[in-house]
Amino acid sequence: MNKPTGKLDAGTVPTGERPGSRKVYQAGVLWPDIRVPFREVAVHPSAQEPALTLYDPSGPYTDPTVVIDIEKGLSKTREPWVVSRGDVEIVETPREVKPEDNGFAKGEHLAPQFTAPRRVYRAKAGANVTQLEYARRGVITPEMEYVAIRENLRRKEADPFIRDGEDFGASIPDFCTPEFVRDEIARGRAIIPANINHTELEPMIIGRNFLVKINANIGNSAVLSHVSDEVDKMVWSIRCGADTVMDLSTGRNIHNIRDWIIRNSSVPIGTVPIYQALEKVNGVAEDLNWEVFRDTLIEQAEQGVDYFTIHAGVRLAYVPLTARRVTGIVSRGGSIMAKWCLAHHKENFLYEHFEDICEIMKAYDVSFSLGDGLRPGCIADANDAAQFGELETLGELTQIAWKHNVQVMIEGPGHVPMHKIKANMDKQLEVCGEAPFYTLGPLTTDVAPGYDHITSAIGAAMIGWFGTAMLCYVTPKEHLGLPNREDVKVGVMTYKLAAHAADLAKGHPTARAWDDAISRARFEFRWEDQFNLGIDPETAREYHDESLPKEAFKTAHFCSMCGPKFCSMKISQDIRDAARAQNDVDTGMDEMARKFRETGGEILVPLTPAE
Amino acid sequence: MNKPTGKLDAGTVPTGERPGSRKVYQAGVLWPDIRVPFREVAVHPSAQEPALTLYDPSGPYTDPTVVIDIEKGLSKTREPWVVSRGDVEIVETPREVKPEDNGFAKGEHLAPQFTAPRRVYRAKAGANVTQLEYARRGVITPEMEYVAIRENLRRKEADPFIRDGEDFGASIPDFCTPEFVRDEIARGRAIIPANINHTELEPMIIGRNFLVKINANIGNSAVLSHVSDEVDKMVWSIRCGADTVMDLSTGRNIHNIRDWIIRNSSVPIGTVPIYQALEKVNGVAEDLNWEVFRDTLIEQAEQGVDYFTIHAGVRLAYVPLTARRVTGIVSRGGSIMAKWCLAHHKENFLYEHFEDICEIMKAYDVSFSLGDGLRPGCIADANDAAQFGELETLGELTQIAWKHNVQVMIEGPGHVPMHKIKANMDKQLEVCGEAPFYTLGPLTTDVAPGYDHITSAIGAAMIGWFGTAMLCYVTPKEHLGLPNREDVKVGVMTYKLAAHAADLAKGHPTARAWDDAISRARFEFRWEDQFNLGIDPETAREYHDESLPKEAFKTAHFCSMCGPKFCSMKISQDIRDAARAQNDVDTGMDEMARKFRETGGEILVPLTPAE
Repeated sequence: MNKPTGKLDAGTVPTGERPGSRKVYQAGVLWPDIRVPFREVAVHPSAQEPALTLYDPSGPYTDPTVVIDIEKGLSKTREPWVVSRGDVEIVETPREVKPEDNGFAKGEHLAPQFTAPRRVYRAKAGANVTQLEYARRGVITPEMEYVAIRENLRRKEADPFIRDGEDFGASIPDFCTPEFVRDEIARGRAIIPANINHTELEPMIIGRNFLVKINANIGNSAVLSHVSDEVDKMVWSIRCGADTVMDLSTGRNIHNIRDWIIRNSSVPIGTVPIYQALEKVNGVAEDLNWEVFRDTLIEQAEQGVDYFTIHAGVRLAYVPLTARRVTGIVSRGGSIMAKWCLAHHKENFLYEHFEDICEIMKAYDVSFSLGDGLRPGCIADANDAAQFGELETLGELTQIAWKHNVQVMIEGPGHVPMHKIKANMDKQLEVCGEAPFYTLGPLTTDVAPGYDHITSAIGAAMIGWFGTAMLCYVTPKEHLGLPNREDVKVGVMTYKLAAHAADLAKGHPTARAWDDAISRARFEFRWEDQFNLGIDPETAREYHDESLPKEAFKTAHFCSMCGPKFCSMKISQDIRDAARAQNDVDTGMDEMARKFRETGGEILVPLTPAE
Repeated sequence: MNKPTGKLDAGTVPTGERPGSRKVYQAGVLWPDIRVPFREVAVHPSAQEPALTLYDPSGPYTDPTVVIDIEKGLSKTREPWVVSRGDVEIVETPREVKPEDNGFAKGEHLAPQFTAPRRVYRAKAGANVTQLEYARRGVITPEMEYVAIRENLRRKEADPFIRDGEDFGASIPDFCTPEFVRDEIARGRAIIPANINHTELEPMIIGRNFLVKINANIGNSAVLSHVSDEVDKMVWSIRCGADTVMDLSTGRNIHNIRDWIIRNSSVPIGTVPIYQALEKVNGVAEDLNWEVFRDTLIEQAEQGVDYFTIHAGVRLAYVPLTARRVTGIVSRGGSIMAKWCLAHHKENFLYEHFEDICEIMKAYDVSFSLGDGLRPGCIADANDAAQFGELETLGELTQIAWKHNVQVMIEGPGHVPMHKIKANMDKQLEVCGEAPFYTLGPLTTDVAPGYDHITSAIGAAMIGWFGTAMLCYVTPKEHLGLPNREDVKVGVMTYKLAAHAADLAKGHPTARAWDDAISRARFEFRWEDQFNLGIDPETAREYHDESLPKEAFKTAHFCSMCGPKFCSMKISQDIRDAARAQNDVDTGMDEMARKFRETGGEILVPLTPAE
């Protein structure tokens, strides 16, 4: 087993643009200083089409003009936005790092501290600094304009687009304006997780009426993982396409590792504070109490964590409902709180102190991710009374958070067979007032350890389509071990494609352009374009080169699957050319079709597009 | 590039039982000589539960008592069944192998012939030897009893089972009887692809009211692949779980490679005869004609191919409808026929000769797989007029095949976004009279080359749930290259899990037992059982061992994800134990719940299971 290293190896953090991509920025209008990043993929001149703009959560790491120094952390772009609002103050004596914050690690076992200086902020007495507070006051913040620009992918309001999805009652606008963002946040239907102490952040939005987002989990455990591994995994995750990252570290060095991650992260960082609180009481769940939990929340809020998973819905009364389940309670946080409840035969102290927690959240703008501690851990336990009972409590807590103008999203399952997925979405929308849903998968069968990124991508794509705002990834190692870098990549790519499949099916106005661009490249044998436009250019190229490694084949009008004589794409192009030669495509082909109809071919009547 | 080798290396064919599995057989009642194979997975004695029976398409290769010699081929178990029906005759002068059958390959380029002697059969003059013919005459064949036993997975009729799926109007019985099988075949709702010349076959059934099946494609191409590679890939595919295998070879040596594959295959083999016919006319689509195609059908029928993909639905009039598509025609067979139609400006000769084809099919019991030559090759082209026009023609051809008592299934797409998938299934059921649907994916987005096993598994699981009977796998190399052995494994495993997710969601009576068994093993930290019960025991074990390699950890009550202190499963078991100690689980927990309800906890009222 590995011990924490005493030094971070900056060489492991991947930098540079993705293959075939260029980092570009778009400035704000209301806030001209904001620079919203995109990934632009130019195609071969023969295509005679403009470059494609893709959503880019990879941060400054893919900007060749930025010098990365993880010892210093990323540039604090958001700091002036936060300060200029005039409602925050510098914390003169921030909470000091205590030995228990790092699990009492000492000497060579203690991970190095992040030492570059920074200011710690909190709301002035009586102030509420959440995006929800501003939104309800009618204020459009730089964060709001930033995400509005980001969601449009450089489309202009008048640009045409194809929209034929089924959105199940969502309200996705044709064009995303800053005012729409503000309104969605004000309604509680979307959140911008953005702690005032995470000024390195590039804001992003989570909500049903925006692009579906994905989260990657990283984190050491008591058993495995280095400090540098975790920073590297975070950078690697966002390079692959993760929109937020959760640091689920347990064991020693939790505090110090988290510092390194946040200071180097351009995406929101989420945590489960109960994990660290439990370390502080030496892993004895019964010894947890409000004071140690409160101290942990402040510790992490001052560090800049953007959202907290809080398992306040694991009420004492629900615990017995899990006793006859096949897999009991599978959420770590859920099981910790259940054990506490049973040991004391008392109501969950997170539930009891929920308003106190809200007071802390609003002083830093930490968003709630209300944890589903009783989510099903297997198909047999899906949609049971424990799960849905807890969900109703999360709905009740959502209303309390909203009363305090604190941003909220709701965590969801888990393991759910396909026919029971939609009920989860419908019930969440109903009982949680359309607060964003954030689900783990769900896995649609239990039988495939080693392939749970796929069992869950099926459920994730479906629930994303139905309305889930963010999908928490699952890696191939789920149920088996801690993911390595390759597993993280596979997990993120898998969820990226599931999220995009959901955007397509919902009819998001920006979605189709990507599929159409890569399909045109495929049809025209623009191999380089096909690689570069793919979600994972390196892997696509590598797979192609395994069969046809020579450079000459990059321009070949066939691939190794069929070889030159059998290529359907080639024949299909010949057909099109033949039709062109015979006449103009637009008239000639129609003419042929007309003739056929006249001779009785009624099947040519265009069919109604199916839903 | 590789040349065909002069020798097959038997050492490459994987044999032996899967880890933790035992090969078992169940005899017939109506036909006591039949022996239906299953894979039995015993669990640790501490579980106090019986071994789990899994469906087993892996053939004699996983029977340790069988000596495999691929030079001789598998045992011809079905030959007496076929002969005893009294309606077949030995073909005294079978069609001789011609130079063009192997693409005029000579000398060292010519793959070796399969030389072990065998008899070639065909129906006696005027006889029809299809399972559909027998079914409609009220005859229950050994093949029918075989698949009935196979579908029940050793469940007994009175055994309890959990069934809470949504089957969209399917008619899955609680228990599968031979008479039910006969009736479904007679209605055309299911097929048993079983050429009378493929006597090495272990029969299997394809239909909406049976377990969802998967197909793996193999085949050399003009560019790549050995003879031995293809036999190995076939064995490897069925070992991983493929229910049928399509040999899509193109280029040279098609005939000889196919011989090796069929003689060694215990699963149905499908082909696309137009590929070989095109080779016979030197790859010039315009030179194709009925005579060369007919000759190819007889050649392959005598070899024992179980189902033919026939692109008879690519009618001349539909071709112009593809001209403005983003990716035109992407089916190889479809594009070949389209080119032929346009070149001659004549109706597709497969359509014109469809009844002649039926005459050949019924003399050998080759099943139709009516090809969707105009399937969409990208999201933009999904559910368009060309695709649905062809589907209507396939419905018309289904009726003609049924008139001849020839078995039929219908091929389906392709690339389809999630919101347009169900319309495909609904339309297929409507226009093709509930003939089994056999789809390729569908891929739910175009943007993920390298991950198309996943983009398509999403669509495959969904359409399988909606009613598709067999799912054609897609490997990670789709759009990029020819799959190698690892790609074939990943493709098959991915589709196996998608098919099972569909069975679960449909509420197939055998489905839940598998999930529940592995979930109990997971909850009880029976690591070995969890590996062995998984779809891919080797991969699960390998992933686990990457983090915790020591043997001691195989009995550890935690895994590397959370470590010992944080393990939710462990805590959850403690909760259960605590509840047991306090009182008996069945009464104590109920008592606690009752008390809570009495104090106003109405959320404990069991919720109606959602659909």
